[in-house]
Amino acid sequence: MATPRSKLLLFFILLLFTFMHHASLAQSNEPYVRIAKIVVDSTQLDSYKTALKEGVETAVRVEPGVLRMYAVYDKDNPTHITVFETYASKEAYELHIQTPHFKKYKTSTLSMVKSLELVDVVPIAFEAKKQQ
Amino acid sequence: MATPRSKLLLFFILLLFTFMHHASLAQSNEPYVRIAKIVVDSTQLDSYKTALKEGVETAVRVEPGVLRMYAVYDKDNPTHITVFETYASKEAYELHIQTPHFKKYKTSTLSMVKSLELVDVVPIAFEAKKQQ
Repeated sequence: MATPRSKLLLFFILLLFTFMHHASLAQSNEPYVRIAKIVVDSTQLDSYKTALKEGVETAVRVEPGVLRMYAVYDKDNPTHITVFETYASKEAYELHIQTPHFKKYKTSTLSMVKSLELVDVVPIAFEAKKQQ
Repeated sequence: MATPRSKLLLFFILLLFTFMHHASLAQSNEPYVRIAKIVVDSTQLDSYKTALKEGVETAVRVEPGVLRMYAVYDKDNPTHITVFETYASKEAYELHIQTPHFKKYKTSTLSMVKSLELVDVVPIAFEAKKQQ
């Protein structure tokens, strides 16, 4: 039989789980921001850029949770690509990687990508002109 | 005295310079996009982030040519800061670094910054939700 002390312990454990659950729910509504750093095979750079552009445009147009995707290449190092990605939530990102357009981009560019680094980032300041 | 051939050569040289001048004018109206990669002294990270946030917010609010500034830190490496910057033109950037708020940010954070790498980049695709 449970003693008063073990009941109290059980109560605090349940309380802790409730807090953790709420915290994880709150977090899932925060924007999920990521920087993808990609190095592309120089002989396939044009094809890669076309595929990336198509993937980015489709994602922002059709997916409610894909808020922003800025893809650029280094001026002095054109095979080095950076994509600055903002999703409405981590869940929106999980949905994104299941879409046909993402899978098409991923499959078609697999042989073009020499390296891929994904960096999760946290906003400090996100400022843009209103008309943007 | 100039021969017909040298006159023709002069004509083509002038034509070339005219094209180059137009090309440089056209380029100056293109957005200037840059990624700043900053490593900050860990003991001064909070002060640095406050100064950066203030600088970014002021720049986008008061400078017509500062279109967008997204400052983030790496989740797994919080002293590593990335600022994704879009100016209306290279000239807008040159004006930006002469402003009192930029100079204040630069002076106040000088001792906090361990390294700074500035990478000029070229857009491949810039897509964002319209309501953003």
